[in-house]
Amino acid sequence: MTTDIQDLMFQLQKKNDSKIVMYIADGLGGLPQEPGGKTELETAATPNLDKLAQRGTLGLSTPVLPGITPGSGPGHLGLFGYDPLTFNIGRGVLEALGIDFDLGPNDVAIRGNFCTIDNDGKITDRRAGRIASDIGAKLCEKLDQIEIPGVEVFVKPVKEYRLVIVFRGEGLGGHVNDTDPQRTGIPPLKAEGKDAASEKTAEICNLFIEKAREVLKEDAPANLLTLRGIAKKPDIPTYEEVYGLKSGAIAVYPMYRGLARLVGMDVLDAGQTIDDQMKCLKENWDKFDFFFIHFKYTDSTGEDGNFDAKVKRTEEFDAGLAKIEALNPTVIIVSGDHSTPSKMKAHSWHPVPLLLAADRCRFDGSTGFSESECRKGGLGQIQAKYIMSLAMASADRLEKYGA
Amino acid sequence: MTTDIQDLMFQLQKKNDSKIVMYIADGLGGLPQEPGGKTELETAATPNLDKLAQRGTLGLSTPVLPGITPGSGPGHLGLFGYDPLTFNIGRGVLEALGIDFDLGPNDVAIRGNFCTIDNDGKITDRRAGRIASDIGAKLCEKLDQIEIPGVEVFVKPVKEYRLVIVFRGEGLGGHVNDTDPQRTGIPPLKAEGKDAASEKTAEICNLFIEKAREVLKEDAPANLLTLRGIAKKPDIPTYEEVYGLKSGAIAVYPMYRGLARLVGMDVLDAGQTIDDQMKCLKENWDKFDFFFIHFKYTDSTGEDGNFDAKVKRTEEFDAGLAKIEALNPTVIIVSGDHSTPSKMKAHSWHPVPLLLAADRCRFDGSTGFSESECRKGGLGQIQAKYIMSLAMASADRLEKYGA
Repeated sequence: MTTDIQDLMFQLQKKNDSKIVMYIADGLGGLPQEPGGKTELETAATPNLDKLAQRGTLGLSTPVLPGITPGSGPGHLGLFGYDPLTFNIGRGVLEALGIDFDLGPNDVAIRGNFCTIDNDGKITDRRAGRIASDIGAKLCEKLDQIEIPGVEVFVKPVKEYRLVIVFRGEGLGGHVNDTDPQRTGIPPLKAEGKDAASEKTAEICNLFIEKAREVLKEDAPANLLTLRGIAKKPDIPTYEEVYGLKSGAIAVYPMYRGLARLVGMDVLDAGQTIDDQMKCLKENWDKFDFFFIHFKYTDSTGEDGNFDAKVKRTEEFDAGLAKIEALNPTVIIVSGDHSTPSKMKAHSWHPVPLLLAADRCRFDGSTGFSESECRKGGLGQIQAKYIMSLAMASADRLEKYGA
Repeated sequence: MTTDIQDLMFQLQKKNDSKIVMYIADGLGGLPQEPGGKTELETAATPNLDKLAQRGTLGLSTPVLPGITPGSGPGHLGLFGYDPLTFNIGRGVLEALGIDFDLGPNDVAIRGNFCTIDNDGKITDRRAGRIASDIGAKLCEKLDQIEIPGVEVFVKPVKEYRLVIVFRGEGLGGHVNDTDPQRTGIPPLKAEGKDAASEKTAEICNLFIEKAREVLKEDAPANLLTLRGIAKKPDIPTYEEVYGLKSGAIAVYPMYRGLARLVGMDVLDAGQTIDDQMKCLKENWDKFDFFFIHFKYTDSTGEDGNFDAKVKRTEEFDAGLAKIEALNPTVIIVSGDHSTPSKMKAHSWHPVPLLLAADRCRFDGSTGFSESECRKGGLGQIQAKYIMSLAMASADRLEKYGA
């Protein structure tokens, strides 16, 4: 019934030579340590962002809905202009993206946890004593040898007791329960499918677990595994389809490369540092219409609860902006996928600072880039999924709606 | 396809020991008497609200949609986090709630109006000369004796010519037209049902009217009645289901108790004054996670068009806040169900001042609680249905959405 912003993008997109850069500081928004104090962003010295704010328009972005704290998946889908309530990324899919596994349309991705069971098959430790990563990796190699007729099996380590399992085969559904019972003293649950295709997946899961039990029987404490977040990747239209944009992603961390790949962006060689990323941007400048540049450390320092480190990382992010501006993009968007206040040591629901700069901006009198300036900004408070339509408009890439 | 905020609350709720207090001044928002003047709230001395605003976050709440003036039902459903366009409370149901009638799932509730008909059965006065309440009450006693096979019949006076009729029985539908033709000179309309179950209700309505005609034939001017707002109570998920909150309502007026009961709150003994209400809050503090406290007089003075009285009542409301704060709730929400500007002597569509105070608020530099401060507040302008998700987040009662 209702027309989503995405449908409008499909309908109205047009092409030109403009360049759009989306520069994302993960977990950008923050909180002051005390009422009346300054946030991390307000504390940081950010001359480049402040200057850009003076010629741009500010606002606050709500990643999902008021009060809803997003994970990285919904947070980025929102930024990319996809309604994060319509497109749901399962845990298994996100884990697979996080280890650079290139998921195909016939793949079911699963997050696995090594666990410990006793002689009666009851779970005694849901994380197998948090085994070291190298032990986990060796066990994954063993599990990767398991053969199941009719499907390809991939088993890859993530970290410590965590792993990813992918089953590749025709007609597999993604609606299967977790086998982790969420407590010890009982056996893992049987996998069951919610429809015929998922029942097929569930049978494969149960068969895999049976074989894993044999393979791991001498490997205590990690003598079994549980399966969680069993899912297929969402059927999602690409950036090229939605916006007509040839798009490149420049992200150091695999999960963000994976999320970009999910919407059809080309994943470029980002290197390891922000300087590497900016070098990559410059080298690829002529090849793409749109660039997604992801900076991780404003989130990780926030999650660590380290206010000062987040301030410093924000300044590093600011320095990167100068190199983007040197390339003279038509539109620059600066924002985050969600807030990560160091006070909370976690993602939060607080709206995220947003800056859009282009020749066609309506000047809003902002003097700098901060939560308090953004609160008064000309874009108001908008859902993240509308950032891309504003960027497209600012790049003159949208036709008029209706006659 | 898209998920409503309520579905997210179902999915993401988690429990802890936090306490949330929603402190509602009915009809809180106002208008200045002259352009450039102050509203009732801006005129009132509200030291407690102002202090809370300094450590909280302000905003404006739109009860339904811009320009839409809500009745008490939709106004409160919005505050409670239920989309007032999805959940519709029929007039009959609201009238029944307003006289503390405890409606069950098999009840059809009807608002009745005594009217006057002539010898040809044509209506000559749709309100029977606005008969006095004690006369209306006596007539209701007579009507309450009417017996209809297969259903229980309840007839209760409201005020003057207004009454409530409830039919209790299996399989009764709630989709029946009003029998009030909205003008004089013609007979009342026949009741007709829109589906089989409602047709059954319509037959009962017509039979009841026939018997009422006999019972009231000597009681001119009130010698018949019309039926309006024939409805069943909406099938509405409870606060416990949606939020996992054990909730108590502290309201002096029956309609607000009824609305709270409709969403599954426990109705507490509120007494008659704001002091009684605060005493009730303190006594029940340990028994509930969430309290809804309703203050009526900011609305009734507004409806009276008495600016000064509304100012005074606002100050009384402010004084009550100190007693809430003394209990140290995790989250305090202060707002109204709609605006009632005394200049308009009526409910209005103007957005309602909103204050949310909790440790995890993002400071927005507010200096006091008023329409003009709220307009600049950090929550922006939001629909009322998002207040509860913000409160839940601020109380750390929501899981992250998506991985």
